[in-house]
Amino acid sequence: MAEISLRKIDQSNGYDCFSLKLTEEQKLFVSDPVRSLAQAYLFKDQCTPFGIYDGSKMVGYLLVIYDPDESEYNLWHVMIDRDYQNHGYGTAAVKQAIAYAETKPFGRADKLSLTCDSRNVHAYSMYLKLGFLPTGRMSDEETELAIAI
Amino acid sequence: MAEISLRKIDQSNGYDCFSLKLTEEQKLFVSDPVRSLAQAYLFKDQCTPFGIYDGSKMVGYLLVIYDPDESEYNLWHVMIDRDYQNHGYGTAAVKQAIAYAETKPFGRADKLSLTCDSRNVHAYSMYLKLGFLPTGRMSDEETELAIAI
Repeated sequence: MAEISLRKIDQSNGYDCFSLKLTEEQKLFVSDPVRSLAQAYLFKDQCTPFGIYDGSKMVGYLLVIYDPDESEYNLWHVMIDRDYQNHGYGTAAVKQAIAYAETKPFGRADKLSLTCDSRNVHAYSMYLKLGFLPTGRMSDEETELAIAI
Repeated sequence: MAEISLRKIDQSNGYDCFSLKLTEEQKLFVSDPVRSLAQAYLFKDQCTPFGIYDGSKMVGYLLVIYDPDESEYNLWHVMIDRDYQNHGYGTAAVKQAIAYAETKPFGRADKLSLTCDSRNVHAYSMYLKLGFLPTGRMSDEETELAIAI
């Protein structure tokens, strides 16, 4: 694993998102990056989609969005391309997403939350290892997890 | 056909785009609105995606984008939902897209152009009837058509 970085999605790299592919198992739990970018348009003033890079290669995608009603940041649509699984990219990328949320780019908040299907064992345990904790709330059969920022 | 209008896509109506469906034939020629909205994110400072409405019902989608290099507007991804074909919606909507481009919302230009596969006979003839003319240029096997604005 070379140096992992997050880079904001824009005209220069956006079409690389269109090539990211999910495994059949991932499709059960995660949105396609194209669908996520479409949502990013709807919330364009309160979210930042990122490509996850290994060096100059985009290997995944995630989106950080601000929820002004809850005064919290949310992490959406974390995915690593099916050809780049199990290299630790997810963990490295989520750490950087937490650091980004800590800059509070869209407004005040004291936590970053996400929802994860507990049957998505690999992702769920990754979030717990990173310090996310269940909030006790559920959303569409997914468990809400949060970390202080 | 009730009153046809274009409404800008935002948080209030954006998810309706996700429900618009293409026929198998349309899929040969036109992008899915979700894919188009993802592109809209990339070009968010120079484009406007619209829902095409019959009264309060979204029946289609189109996107107007400014090309600063060519100093022209482009019409992308015009589609009418498969359940609302052949009602004249496309013609009414494109007329309004022309009127919108004439307001030059993103910068100066003197034409609105688009590309259309000439095998897409219905759409191609619609554009000609509306006053679009072939420019003589091709793009990815599609014919470029333009109208003065």
